[in-house]
Amino acid sequence: MALIVQKYGGSSVADTQSLQRVARRIVQTRQAGHQVVVVVSAMGDTTDDLIDMAAELNAHAPAREMDILLSAGERISMSLLSMAISAQGVPAMAFTGAQAGIRTDAKYGKAQIVGMVPERIARVIRDNNVAIVAGFQGVNDAEDVTTLGRGGSDTTAVALAAALHADVCEIYTDVDGLFTADPRLVPTARALHSLDYEETLELAANGAKILHLRAVEFARRYRVPLHVRSSFSDKDGTWIAQGPAPKSLRGIVPAKALEEENVEAPIISGIAHDRSQEKLTVVGLPDRPGVAADLFAAVAKVGANIDMIVQNISEARPGRANISITMPAEDIPGVMEELQHEKSALDFIRIDHDTNVGKVSLVGAGMRNNPGISACFFQALSDAGINVDIISTSEVRISVLISLDRLDDAVLAIHKAFDLDSEETEAVVYGGTGR
Amino acid sequence: MALIVQKYGGSSVADTQSLQRVARRIVQTRQAGHQVVVVVSAMGDTTDDLIDMAAELNAHAPAREMDILLSAGERISMSLLSMAISAQGVPAMAFTGAQAGIRTDAKYGKAQIVGMVPERIARVIRDNNVAIVAGFQGVNDAEDVTTLGRGGSDTTAVALAAALHADVCEIYTDVDGLFTADPRLVPTARALHSLDYEETLELAANGAKILHLRAVEFARRYRVPLHVRSSFSDKDGTWIAQGPAPKSLRGIVPAKALEEENVEAPIISGIAHDRSQEKLTVVGLPDRPGVAADLFAAVAKVGANIDMIVQNISEARPGRANISITMPAEDIPGVMEELQHEKSALDFIRIDHDTNVGKVSLVGAGMRNNPGISACFFQALSDAGINVDIISTSEVRISVLISLDRLDDAVLAIHKAFDLDSEETEAVVYGGTGR
Repeated sequence: MALIVQKYGGSSVADTQSLQRVARRIVQTRQAGHQVVVVVSAMGDTTDDLIDMAAELNAHAPAREMDILLSAGERISMSLLSMAISAQGVPAMAFTGAQAGIRTDAKYGKAQIVGMVPERIARVIRDNNVAIVAGFQGVNDAEDVTTLGRGGSDTTAVALAAALHADVCEIYTDVDGLFTADPRLVPTARALHSLDYEETLELAANGAKILHLRAVEFARRYRVPLHVRSSFSDKDGTWIAQGPAPKSLRGIVPAKALEEENVEAPIISGIAHDRSQEKLTVVGLPDRPGVAADLFAAVAKVGANIDMIVQNISEARPGRANISITMPAEDIPGVMEELQHEKSALDFIRIDHDTNVGKVSLVGAGMRNNPGISACFFQALSDAGINVDIISTSEVRISVLISLDRLDDAVLAIHKAFDLDSEETEAVVYGGTGR
Repeated sequence: MALIVQKYGGSSVADTQSLQRVARRIVQTRQAGHQVVVVVSAMGDTTDDLIDMAAELNAHAPAREMDILLSAGERISMSLLSMAISAQGVPAMAFTGAQAGIRTDAKYGKAQIVGMVPERIARVIRDNNVAIVAGFQGVNDAEDVTTLGRGGSDTTAVALAAALHADVCEIYTDVDGLFTADPRLVPTARALHSLDYEETLELAANGAKILHLRAVEFARRYRVPLHVRSSFSDKDGTWIAQGPAPKSLRGIVPAKALEEENVEAPIISGIAHDRSQEKLTVVGLPDRPGVAADLFAAVAKVGANIDMIVQNISEARPGRANISITMPAEDIPGVMEELQHEKSALDFIRIDHDTNVGKVSLVGAGMRNNPGISACFFQALSDAGINVDIISTSEVRISVLISLDRLDDAVLAIHKAFDLDSEETEAVVYGGTGR
């Protein structure tokens, strides 16, 4: 008997039929002798519909009320799913984030989990119930509901799996796992059988939408084995794990996915791309120590997440430098405002705003020790006639910022150059996980 | 400055436009210098839609999960209303039943309020916020959400008004108050200006759907002045109050509505009718002491609400009696089952089930001292050729059970006989309050 946490995204529970299908899968897992905790997102378009209504009423809706509103979506899906399971003869109980003991800070809309007290969940599964938990939400010290932001349901699932010492956290989605590239872009993309946490982090951080970064960070910290798979098939998906396998996992997590060193892993895991960023260039900053620090302090003040950074000495203006930064498009207005406000203190000339940027990243565990890889990567871009604007690298990743309108071409070219194509085309649609 | 509790039903908040209209009304009350606590129902058809989805998934959905599901409706309406108010420049905060301190027992679907701890509401209105509270819901000792059943939002509003010592509880609906009869049936029905708690109780208990019985009982016990009015107009509606007026009420509650003896009140307040009941006749019970008590004990066991009772000695069977009882149609199956189960112990012959019954009631404060009233009442029925099956009376009411298909005729005939018609026809639709 194992304890399995299963997370179903909005596309897996789009309507009552999907709820019944998901309920059957849960009942099967239960009948196979496992304890099951289920984390569920809001059904289909519920969240978008609620956001639309809010926007009609208040263009600047208070964040606290927005979180109360959005949390209603999971209340509906979790109670309906619980009913669908008990209709199949298996006792089930649904719980809000608060009832499941998911304590957060007070940052409405993007709350961080600060404590997990899932005593009630542990009790009800011990009593043979399936526990259904609302994804994406928690409760703060004021006993107000908070939401965890993008990918929040993944985070709920992994945090619960960690706190309950679950044997595996299954992330159900509408595709067969993580792929060498987005199959909507690259029809020949291959599903990946196993990844380690580092590679998965890089893929998630650089645009692969199938699994959220925060959830992967949580899984890595607490060594929660993840299994990303499709709720529409029984196929094995992508295993994300590392380190010695707990005994209880035998027969659940494939041994291969848990080896200390995943010797069979290919050098390249996959290609991620990201269209959600835009670029700001602060032109004509004084070229002296401390200026970049002041600039980033101003950006940090508005809570923007900077991704890529490049600094150039200005050729036209001696003693001046330009700094370009990329960040999520939604952070741009706040940063622009703050920088204009600090314009005289920072002493720059102007800000250029470029929306025509996209990022493509190559991720692989053995990359740093394979100098041929960068060469092949840049050659592929060059052969396709694609200019590189900014480059950033890590232990297991190379990313480049290019024109947004060449992003698809870049992904295809790199995928081909590294011979990642599978023999057969995967007939799937690579959708976002919603929340 | 007064403290006003306002309750808006589902028809007053059917869509975003209605929410904006309601928000304007709340903002006006706030701008007139009053503290405002708002209780809101789910929007329009939300509750019915949720019930339909649940029925698709589970014909016998667990009551606990059903309450979680239904409570989502108020979460949506309360947070949207709060946003609509703050968009008009008035600070507002929304609270669930649990957050508003509405503690209930564990009877899912028809929970009773067992305690009110609205400290947080008191605090936020003292800090100049409008507090929006989810109607219809509370929380039990297990920290699970419960719903209060039919008319639950009215009960929430009156309970909050009592606990916060509000000056008045305004019940907003889609008609101009309580009428001498259902204006859909009797187009000439008059809106009533004021009623005392007794009369209102009798009207609510006997089929007037505009205000729920439990809410009126709560208001009577704690002497909460009620004002039932339309959210579509600024007209004064029906005042329900009694006893000396608190000083703070001056200028809010009309003095007339608060006099010890409402000398201006007409003898007859109005006519209520009820189509929701059915009749069971237990045929051939032994005619000996204690039999009725055993019968009612069996009925009480399944929690059915008996309304009218009549016992006849059986002419055909010496030593045997028949007992007829009426109750809400939804209670009938449970009672039938329990009685069949106790058939040998109770020693009856059979149960007859009559669905073709309706109840019409005449309510008025001065009735008991006016013997002419019963005479006129029965004469009107007789002139219309309507047979009376069961009669029940109280201090301020006469009710008769008749054929369901003659119910409309009965209401019209009695309304005319007592000269209750107004000079002008009210152009309103007399809708239910939902929950």
